[in-house]
Amino acid sequence: MDKSGHSQHISQQYNAELEDVKKSMLEMGGQVEKLVADAITSIIDGDSGIAEQVRENDKPVNRMESDIDEECARILARRQPAASDLRLVLAITRASTDLERIGDEAGKIATQTIDLAEAGRSPGGYTEIQHMGTSVRGMLHDALDAFARMDEKLALKVAEQDKEVDRYYGSAMRVVLTLMMEDPRSISRVLNIMWALRSLERVGDHARNIAEHVIYLVKGKDVRHVGLKEMAKQVKK
Amino acid sequence: MDKSGHSQHISQQYNAELEDVKKSMLEMGGQVEKLVADAITSIIDGDSGIAEQVRENDKPVNRMESDIDEECARILARRQPAASDLRLVLAITRASTDLERIGDEAGKIATQTIDLAEAGRSPGGYTEIQHMGTSVRGMLHDALDAFARMDEKLALKVAEQDKEVDRYYGSAMRVVLTLMMEDPRSISRVLNIMWALRSLERVGDHARNIAEHVIYLVKGKDVRHVGLKEMAKQVKK
Repeated sequence: MDKSGHSQHISQQYNAELEDVKKSMLEMGGQVEKLVADAITSIIDGDSGIAEQVRENDKPVNRMESDIDEECARILARRQPAASDLRLVLAITRASTDLERIGDEAGKIATQTIDLAEAGRSPGGYTEIQHMGTSVRGMLHDALDAFARMDEKLALKVAEQDKEVDRYYGSAMRVVLTLMMEDPRSISRVLNIMWALRSLERVGDHARNIAEHVIYLVKGKDVRHVGLKEMAKQVKK
Repeated sequence: MDKSGHSQHISQQYNAELEDVKKSMLEMGGQVEKLVADAITSIIDGDSGIAEQVRENDKPVNRMESDIDEECARILARRQPAASDLRLVLAITRASTDLERIGDEAGKIATQTIDLAEAGRSPGGYTEIQHMGTSVRGMLHDALDAFARMDEKLALKVAEQDKEVDRYYGSAMRVVLTLMMEDPRSISRVLNIMWALRSLERVGDHARNIAEHVIYLVKGKDVRHVGLKEMAKQVKK
């Protein structure tokens, strides 16, 4: 296995098919990164125009997931890949599912933006959105980068970042709870912020999943339920 | 393809492998159904003992997902399944991912139970938990039944039920919002109920996903992003 993630085959056509579907997944990743970035901008700026676009642009992403899955099933049936090729195809199909879910979360954030555009701004929580947004965008970018470069160490870093994001999410939840108690008339608007924070936390989870698929791909080990310590051990092996 | 979901093979061993992994997934489904039922009981009865058990029993379910995925990868590599066998293996691995996520949601509901056991009961929302709980448990049961019997019509019914559950979820959200506004001191406890309702809504989504895998398996069509009307058309073809 070289750094393309698959063995080199006598069939140039087969190599090209593997490369193409990997490229499609990474392109889908780029689209999804943009959806997340735009969703965060929309809620911070209170821009329902951008939010509408995010909800609209979620559809081509769904289409991409179906296409990638179809192509993966076709490769499985026609090429009957083994070993690292098989892991690559499985990792691509799993990653595309996570990317589709991230697109859904971006759409949910956009929905909160649209609600807030009608109801008026929340009394707070925007700093927390900004902070978590920056973190999970970094995680998603690194996870895709790790996939592109077959970099299991970068993948491990993403999993470690997710722990930090989860901790920050806990404190952000306490902030929004306080806002609600201080001004009960703002509860509904603060809930919009709370759902957006929740969606960002989910984006972080899915980025971590993608990182786990990278470790599976490179190391052949399923690290989904093992905890960070054991994951680090597998990566360093 | 017969009602076992795969072609009959000359190799009895291969048939047995496909049957076994399907059975493992359905057994995992049974475990997950119990987790969801117990999680709902725990929050309604305020029983943190049951809640602790749910969080503990989530671990073997994670293990089951890893085992099923490993077995599916082994079958793909060794047997190189085609057509309906390939779809069966892919549908099993996807369904086990959804089941694992449902187990996570049951664990999240149990966490709300434990929070509430310390903070005192919520002023309301329990009727909504009960109602949504009954609906999504029915959906999950039907989705697994549809998988076991390769029943695409029952799968379609699950997708239709998910629409109803989503509608009910919307009205339950309005109920809990009102509770928070009426008594701001209860906000934190009502939020626990709200997160539990959210988890139940997610269980419904995953049950719907499993139903979509059944339709993919039986009809060979990816119906994940097509809407109910188109799904019904594919099922009736």
